[in-house]
Amino acid sequence: MYKTGKPYIKKILELIKNTHTQKLRPPASSDGIGTKGFYHWQHKSFRNAVLDSLAMNLNDMAVLRARIYFLQNHIILPLDDERAILKIVENLVKECKKREIQIIAGETSIHDDFAGLEISIAVQGAYENHKGNKFQIGDSLIGIRSSGLHSNGFTKVREVFGNEFRLEFIEPTLIYYDKVLELNSKFDIHGMEHITGGAFARLKKFLNESDIEIDNPLKPHEIFYELYSKEVSDEEMYTTFNCGTGFVLSVSSDDSASIVSDLNNNRFFAGIIGRVVEGEGKVKIKSAFSNELVVL
Amino acid sequence: MYKTGKPYIKKILELIKNTHTQKLRPPASSDGIGTKGFYHWQHKSFRNAVLDSLAMNLNDMAVLRARIYFLQNHIILPLDDERAILKIVENLVKECKKREIQIIAGETSIHDDFAGLEISIAVQGAYENHKGNKFQIGDSLIGIRSSGLHSNGFTKVREVFGNEFRLEFIEPTLIYYDKVLELNSKFDIHGMEHITGGAFARLKKFLNESDIEIDNPLKPHEIFYELYSKEVSDEEMYTTFNCGTGFVLSVSSDDSASIVSDLNNNRFFAGIIGRVVEGEGKVKIKSAFSNELVVL
Repeated sequence: MYKTGKPYIKKILELIKNTHTQKLRPPASSDGIGTKGFYHWQHKSFRNAVLDSLAMNLNDMAVLRARIYFLQNHIILPLDDERAILKIVENLVKECKKREIQIIAGETSIHDDFAGLEISIAVQGAYENHKGNKFQIGDSLIGIRSSGLHSNGFTKVREVFGNEFRLEFIEPTLIYYDKVLELNSKFDIHGMEHITGGAFARLKKFLNESDIEIDNPLKPHEIFYELYSKEVSDEEMYTTFNCGTGFVLSVSSDDSASIVSDLNNNRFFAGIIGRVVEGEGKVKIKSAFSNELVVL
Repeated sequence: MYKTGKPYIKKILELIKNTHTQKLRPPASSDGIGTKGFYHWQHKSFRNAVLDSLAMNLNDMAVLRARIYFLQNHIILPLDDERAILKIVENLVKECKKREIQIIAGETSIHDDFAGLEISIAVQGAYENHKGNKFQIGDSLIGIRSSGLHSNGFTKVREVFGNEFRLEFIEPTLIYYDKVLELNSKFDIHGMEHITGGAFARLKKFLNESDIEIDNPLKPHEIFYELYSKEVSDEEMYTTFNCGTGFVLSVSSDDSASIVSDLNNNRFFAGIIGRVVEGEGKVKIKSAFSNELVVL
């Protein structure tokens, strides 16, 4: 999905548009586990690595309101380790089978100049409904709790922690895909976003003459407080990490209570974290770390 | 395409079959540039890297007699180098546009624990005709010349050459896709194979009660003689490297002259290298290096 949030991203998207000669293209996502793969390789947490690589793609497809039919994978690792490769494929097959996703191609490459692990995944599917994401003025914002760091911000994690290791570094990303597609069929979800690379700054693209006010953010996990204590600013926290909220839904305030209780009754933890108001395209967050206002 | 040729490949294929719950699946390929990416990164040969990653997928799709409609990419590199990334995307777009392949998703990941470059590509398409690959007794074998090492055997190349560099290491893989699909529509091509990982041993899977005899192999490039001179055996040469032949066609001897001249009139170099005879599943090659018989 070209999610790096880098300045050259616009140039990439314009270049790619040149190949769009047909009107119809299936919804698709390409992503992997990035720098987090270093910890998964060190600690042989291969099942978690698979969940991370799937989550990054599945959650993005949920945002597109698309169901996945086909998956291709490319496993990149530093050693020809049969046990690791089979463990990865077994877990990938298990997760795909339960969602009726067919694996149609794959490759394994040994890169002896690599110290980590990458599981690059490409998925394709079809839209369940193609109504786009509209964060409407007056909407309530529901935050769905993350499982921790998920799979982004790891360059910063390594910068802060150096060679130190925390179990939280290999905790897998939560998969919201199945539950979000279900909610999408039961309720009128106006807008939604996966809080990953770029974190809460990702919400800005949905705003026009509106602002997002988050005055009741979900409580961050301990690891986020630890990062914050190591001289990472409020703004950097909310633009680098999910800070406890992995997925956001924008819904009519009439529906918000039913959706929150549906989530909480189904092993997710969710709460109303804020609202969409008239404004000029800003995301305003009352930091859970300092209670200070962060404006993105 | 799971082309590693490793002992666990059968296990992977069996596992993946568990996800095949629907009858129809589109032809697809996933592949990248592997260890060769180290040289491309060192020498900033980004256009060649793109050609390599495309060739690996396009040539495999040609073997499936499938036309590609959609492409997803994942660029993995050690530094957030905007110039490199844009150069890669520009060349990818150029090559896709000319073949009407739509790029539907992509990702760029910076892995600071990586010393090379990987361009992981996933393609999908549709069969032009789905007749399978049959190397029939009595067929002539046409060899189409490679541009050199192509993108496999680089683990061996690095073992042999250590830190030495040769310009041949960054020469891009030849793309046979366009020409092979055209030949496939004009002639009755019984069988074909892309000579990549596993090299000539790849031909064994097409043989049942037949053998392949290659008694007139194309002349290897200088770099192959150099590898051979550094104590790589005839057998290892022909099971690791293309040794000058990047693609093989198995055709009726009546058609062989027309196909060879069609290729030679269109900037490919091709010749009749051997034939399919009655036998027991062996590939027999008269080594271009020693004139000795190699039996695979």
